[in-house]
Amino acid sequence: MREPDSETEVFKPFAWAGDALELIDQRLLPHTESWLRCESADAVAQAITDMVVRGAPAIGIAAAYGMALAAARGELEQCAPKLRAARPTAVNLMWAIDRVLARCGPSFEPDVVLAEAHAIAAEDLAQNRAMAKHGAAVIGGPARIYTHCNTGALATGGLGTALGVVQQLHANGDLLHAYAGETRPWLQGARLTAWELQRAGIAHQLVVDSAAASLMAQGQVDWVIVGADRITANGDVFNKIGTYSLAVLARHHGLRFMVAAPTSTIDLDAKNGDDIAIEQRPGDEVTRLAGQQIAPADTQAWNPVFDRTPYSLIDAIVTEDGQWQPQLDPAEIPPLS
Amino acid sequence: MREPDSETEVFKPFAWAGDALELIDQRLLPHTESWLRCESADAVAQAITDMVVRGAPAIGIAAAYGMALAAARGELEQCAPKLRAARPTAVNLMWAIDRVLARCGPSFEPDVVLAEAHAIAAEDLAQNRAMAKHGAAVIGGPARIYTHCNTGALATGGLGTALGVVQQLHANGDLLHAYAGETRPWLQGARLTAWELQRAGIAHQLVVDSAAASLMAQGQVDWVIVGADRITANGDVFNKIGTYSLAVLARHHGLRFMVAAPTSTIDLDAKNGDDIAIEQRPGDEVTRLAGQQIAPADTQAWNPVFDRTPYSLIDAIVTEDGQWQPQLDPAEIPPLS
Repeated sequence: MREPDSETEVFKPFAWAGDALELIDQRLLPHTESWLRCESADAVAQAITDMVVRGAPAIGIAAAYGMALAAARGELEQCAPKLRAARPTAVNLMWAIDRVLARCGPSFEPDVVLAEAHAIAAEDLAQNRAMAKHGAAVIGGPARIYTHCNTGALATGGLGTALGVVQQLHANGDLLHAYAGETRPWLQGARLTAWELQRAGIAHQLVVDSAAASLMAQGQVDWVIVGADRITANGDVFNKIGTYSLAVLARHHGLRFMVAAPTSTIDLDAKNGDDIAIEQRPGDEVTRLAGQQIAPADTQAWNPVFDRTPYSLIDAIVTEDGQWQPQLDPAEIPPLS
Repeated sequence: MREPDSETEVFKPFAWAGDALELIDQRLLPHTESWLRCESADAVAQAITDMVVRGAPAIGIAAAYGMALAAARGELEQCAPKLRAARPTAVNLMWAIDRVLARCGPSFEPDVVLAEAHAIAAEDLAQNRAMAKHGAAVIGGPARIYTHCNTGALATGGLGTALGVVQQLHANGDLLHAYAGETRPWLQGARLTAWELQRAGIAHQLVVDSAAASLMAQGQVDWVIVGADRITANGDVFNKIGTYSLAVLARHHGLRFMVAAPTSTIDLDAKNGDDIAIEQRPGDEVTRLAGQQIAPADTQAWNPVFDRTPYSLIDAIVTEDGQWQPQLDPAEIPPLS
């Protein structure tokens, strides 16, 4: 098992080896902890395409290190388009590549490119550390937490977003218990969050998503903490399917609901969630599981990737800068539910 | 594919073959429709133990036919204890065996035993037909339905309970759309309900349980209809984990919530749900899936079989006798949520 970075004392899903980028192969988790050594930008691009690395910040960081490998070979100009094409819809991937190109200038000095990759990674971790402290401060004391999907180190430059808050509570001695929803259909909670919590020595229990309501009814949860894929100007949160369900259930039971996400997630150009279409994914993500067909052949599934949680159901949106307040037009404040 | 019974025109999970009981092997669904031929009471008992047949009414019916096979061999007295032991906690199993023994008298006349088995099966189907009509009448017109778990013919003497109401709406031309929740951890919705709906030619979509809230928010659901394992005198409903979550979500979205269950499910001796402990099942039902480990080794899971839905969240409890009103002590009426 790779030891945590000695300076920062957090686990990261990547490691710079001087002449290669090593990535933990998330496809093999939780069963096997295997590190893939990428000695070229092509190899990094392939690893991004193949989902060896996932999570927007982690993909951006991997691409920046891919640029450093390309610069060392004098191939940066040729390699940037290949890295961009590795996951064409990943905003952080484009952002990281553009930032490296803007910083290093036309000489493509390898040391400058590598320094920028290190900077991108370090900034992400620093943001997550700040977000974790802000989140724990908002909670303000001992709490039992329910979380959803995977928002941990594996998806970021270390520590994670919502799972960073959970770890900060644990470090403060304030984490009374952690529940991880398995997060169908992709099971990121079962596969990745349980792995990260176990690795961090944090006691937790896994539950099927539909059992969250019973936990709440029995008084076993104080806060639900989730991440976000996108936040609109009015505070609507788009996140993994199941997030909205948890927000409704938390409100019904009088619990608190926190979203932890970097400011880069906030899209002030999107006035509210009405502007955003939710992608439907192929039905076989629901009808097949672990390579096996579980429903009858030809069964149709309704399989949205994300759902939309209105700000009226959210108690706190926490970023690296602290608690964020949406830009609400008074005429558009959603009714209390 | 076995054709529906010509007289009743419904699919049943069992068929009496004159000298044997044939059971559809529910362990192999939805992939393979295979019928297991049981020529002795021992074979029926083994099929019950092995979960070839599941669902309380279906188990009781199978046991009654097992008694008929035993009576034909003059072995009824020896066989009854074996059938009882097949699923020791199944209330319907004991009830069916006691009923057959009480009816047939000390002579154990094979024809009388067989007639009683037929009667038990026919009564269950007749109850389900009545329940389906009452349920559809309560809904009273075109509706989009969300259902949970498997409450269809496979679990009963035919037609089913909640899924019987869905089929009645379909027969009336009033079923606008049907959504089936996959029902983790056992996936009865994906494996069995989708199979029954497909077989009945009823258009439907499968969804992960945590997506129900998004369907509701988008106005795609009018009624949630579920079955019940047990109903207490005050109207609290104990049913498959996830039922309570759907009831809270339905109330939040202003939708209606129906429970369809035979009067035999109502336990007037239990004043309210406080008296009833909810069984926790082994965690590996959550951490393993389709024979594969999905969470890290040693991951702990919180895995309750059932949840409790208070009557305050239920719009109608429908039985074979029509809509049932709980026996509420005015001092104990739960607060509106």
